Amino acid sequence: MPSFIKERLHKGYAQSMELSGKPLVDEKSQYQRIKIFDTVANGRVMTLDDIVQITTRDESAYAEMLTHLPLLEHGKAQRVMVVGGGDLSIADEALKHKGVKEVVLVDIDGQVVERCREHFAEINAKAFKDKRLTIEIADAFEYLGRPASKGRFDLIVADRPDPVGPGKALFGETFYDRVRNALKPGGFATFQTGVPFYQPWEITDALKELAEFFPQSGLYLTVVPSYIGGFMALSWAGKGKRLGTPAGLKRAAAAYKRAKLKTDYYNPAIHAACFALPEWIKRLVP
Amino acid sequence: MPSFIKERLHKGYAQSMELSGKPLVDEKSQYQRIKIFDTVANGRVMTLDDIVQITTRDESAYAEMLTHLPLLEHGKAQRVMVVGGGDLSIADEALKHKGVKEVVLVDIDGQVVERCREHFAEINAKAFKDKRLTIEIADAFEYLGRPASKGRFDLIVADRPDPVGPGKALFGETFYDRVRNALKPGGFATFQTGVPFYQPWEITDALKELAEFFPQSGLYLTVVPSYIGGFMALSWAGKGKRLGTPAGLKRAAAAYKRAKLKTDYYNPAIHAACFALPEWIKRLVP
Repeated sequence: MPSFIKERLHKGYAQSMELSGKPLVDEKSQYQRIKIFDTVANGRVMTLDDIVQITTRDESAYAEMLTHLPLLEHGKAQRVMVVGGGDLSIADEALKHKGVKEVVLVDIDGQVVERCREHFAEINAKAFKDKRLTIEIADAFEYLGRPASKGRFDLIVADRPDPVGPGKALFGETFYDRVRNALKPGGFATFQTGVPFYQPWEITDALKELAEFFPQSGLYLTVVPSYIGGFMALSWAGKGKRLGTPAGLKRAAAAYKRAKLKTDYYNPAIHAACFALPEWIKRLVP
Repeated sequence: MPSFIKERLHKGYAQSMELSGKPLVDEKSQYQRIKIFDTVANGRVMTLDDIVQITTRDESAYAEMLTHLPLLEHGKAQRVMVVGGGDLSIADEALKHKGVKEVVLVDIDGQVVERCREHFAEINAKAFKDKRLTIEIADAFEYLGRPASKGRFDLIVADRPDPVGPGKALFGETFYDRVRNALKPGGFATFQTGVPFYQPWEITDALKELAEFFPQSGLYLTVVPSYIGGFMALSWAGKGKRLGTPAGLKRAAAAYKRAKLKTDYYNPAIHAACFALPEWIKRLVP
């Protein structure tokens, strides 16, 4: 009899993925229940507290859009921080940029990082070997508040989980204030901002708060099938230029070509298109 | 105990929607099992043979993109045919264009049309009263082959179900040949072309066949959360201009403004953006 893993993140809705074998990991860390398993339709999958975090089939749609988009527009980013991101998918994309000298990944759960090292080598084997990567097992919220973090990063990617469990501190005003403090002038931050079809309030809350703390901010979209609900909202904030201006798009397209990036989702046309919002999403923007 | 409807369209994957009351319709027609029910998260839903056909929460992402996009670029369309579409959502969008003089909807299952009239008034009450609409309970494939259909339509929208059950004849070369014959010079046809994440072959098959029968054809994307899997592929074919050229986008944007269309998904920015394909979808294009 086939065995299914069911995700019930949203009220009144569930998705189920059929396992193609026995679970590879099923254990409790200090913070959460970690499961890793192979599926019939979605590749290898990790859930935390039974919520899908990453699948090998669609992680590119998430990691590439949070990373390449600001890095290519920035053009000169050297220091990147990843908030969370224990599977290293974001770090892996950032390290593809030769100009990047340092990626600091701060995840609270060392056990997630270890299990992902063992079972997601397809995504992160290269990153684990890269000397530019530092992994800090720490509370990213606390890390951002350290004096040493002040003005240190050109890009901060908030690969935060849903605003439940240990990820709760990575939403809200104090978090955005700390991100701003840790950014260099001209730097960008990008944030996972929920699936608007089932979590519409996340856009409204995040954009309202970002506008309070940053001179520039906005919304863009990606589509990650296993983050169920169609579009996923990503938000950005910055201390210098806006993202997505004609000049920024032109700069990014040239940088993409020069860097010979191999991507599965991102390309310059998608970069230009991702700022277009359907009417129903536009109405959620405060 | 809450009751769920489970859809198992794709191998190894399922989605479940929680009902918020007893099913409104659960009956077998000559062709298929029709269910209509209200849900906690997805509005009112109709399934045919347990496959989601329409939900009130996201039908706009589908119907508007198949309809407004070609009609606004065409500019002078008068006669529209809907292949299938018994819920009238496509017909309703087409009838919002004042220049449209006739919409012929051809659905094989009169029982679907009747149940949708009773239970989806929110979407179709206006269309049912519109004298420009003709509903033909017939096989659309056969209808397209009638001598009277030759060269008759400016737009044909193939609101076809998945290529299983009674919808099978609405895929494949003979179908595309008949659509071409029924189009006026300068006319467009648009086609539901599957969810590429779970049905990647649909894009490859459709685009190869369309290129054989039409001087112009191509792909564009929408996102309909309940058509599970992220992006939904729509394809288009035409006997005159290409869709999505800078001139076409400009013409459409002006027409949209003039027509004062009220939309939930479509807008000129989305129109321009929907032709951008992520790398993994680009690779499916033959």
